[in-house]
Amino acid sequence: MRNIKLTLEYDGTDFVGWQSQTNGRNVQDEITKVLDQVLQEPITLVGAGRTDSGVHARGQVANFKTNSSLGVSSILNALNGTLPEDIYVHAATEVNEKFHARFDARERLYKYYISLIPSAIGRQYHWYVKYDLDLSCMNEVAAMLLGEHDFESFTKAEALVPHHRCTILKSEWTKTSTMPTYEIRANRFLHGMVRALVGTMVDIGRGYIPISAFENIMAAKDRRKAGMAVPPNGLFLEEVTY
Amino acid sequence: MRNIKLTLEYDGTDFVGWQSQTNGRNVQDEITKVLDQVLQEPITLVGAGRTDSGVHARGQVANFKTNSSLGVSSILNALNGTLPEDIYVHAATEVNEKFHARFDARERLYKYYISLIPSAIGRQYHWYVKYDLDLSCMNEVAAMLLGEHDFESFTKAEALVPHHRCTILKSEWTKTSTMPTYEIRANRFLHGMVRALVGTMVDIGRGYIPISAFENIMAAKDRRKAGMAVPPNGLFLEEVTY
Repeated sequence: MRNIKLTLEYDGTDFVGWQSQTNGRNVQDEITKVLDQVLQEPITLVGAGRTDSGVHARGQVANFKTNSSLGVSSILNALNGTLPEDIYVHAATEVNEKFHARFDARERLYKYYISLIPSAIGRQYHWYVKYDLDLSCMNEVAAMLLGEHDFESFTKAEALVPHHRCTILKSEWTKTSTMPTYEIRANRFLHGMVRALVGTMVDIGRGYIPISAFENIMAAKDRRKAGMAVPPNGLFLEEVTY
Repeated sequence: MRNIKLTLEYDGTDFVGWQSQTNGRNVQDEITKVLDQVLQEPITLVGAGRTDSGVHARGQVANFKTNSSLGVSSILNALNGTLPEDIYVHAATEVNEKFHARFDARERLYKYYISLIPSAIGRQYHWYVKYDLDLSCMNEVAAMLLGEHDFESFTKAEALVPHHRCTILKSEWTKTSTMPTYEIRANRFLHGMVRALVGTMVDIGRGYIPISAFENIMAAKDRRKAGMAVPPNGLFLEEVTY
């Protein structure tokens, strides 16, 4: 069977997330529906990351097996011609039959966008924060995340996760005019991890939690010690590396 | 009576435009509805520019008269606390009773955003163009617009307009990575003018119309000679100057 890899983008605003589910419009079902029709066989689509409701993706990766001999550019054109406009597939390539979008991913890169100015335009793509933020203080915390750590304090209890250790390869706040942006690259992410980390760093950056408390929050392995999860609309899955 | 000036932003995606009308959700009615309630009297809201369906505004200006003694910051808070999230009022100030948002406007600045890459994210805020565009050629045309000209070729026939002369103060294409952006500042704009101008310049930039044809298009005073109107979602009313 042929194995096809897709690189795609979506606007998470009107989706309940990546994953197939009965309670709402999701990206996986939208794409699968088109592929079933185009390839005339039932398709199983595997995504690299299960983004939550309202979370966006600029570089989501997925793969599927097919018996069809339809060329990849025809598949790509059929997808973009049929999919709703909040999904766009940038590339379709034939890959080794062993390639698995989720298990073979080595690194994922997420970005979180904050705006310090309230706005109507682009409100779907950032979180408005009304506090002054001490970005150098937030960058001190961001740097403490680098390397391998246990992130149990930043995820919901989930029975299926074997352990909570993640290796963080990049963790940095930058700022363009009035938009502080956080970038985090890691070998793996736990459910809700980026949004809990950003929430905790914002609490520190606005002076609500002292920076000295961070190591204890991390060591506690208790979600209740960390800050609130920030809204999903500021979060983007930017890139998956294999 | 007090005269209050509002500076506001809106995402035009889900509006049929600025102006009050019976056939759809419009910005003027949304704001008037809140003002009526907050000020407990019927309010007439005057906008500086009547943006079309789907057109956005970052710096729309409006004014209204009121007998209420409610402070401007209370009015501002009431508006932003009640208005839907696709409208945001940046400022409310008390102005001279003679101030008229539309008639007193000296200059308006519009921007039009093009993307050369198709996308799901941000698709509401630009027009995707699949052609290569010769931006220096488009800038030659843009420069020809400077000064006072008759723009009848770039507007629909409208009985109420006394003449079609506009003085263009700025007209320039710039490009940030894959986004060519057109900026035009003028003393006045005719209905559909920016979108017809952009459509004509894009036709020239992609080699569909020769640059030498532009002067004739302008001189023809015939809308049919110019290019198609480009989609509204790339257009932003950026600023109104008094």
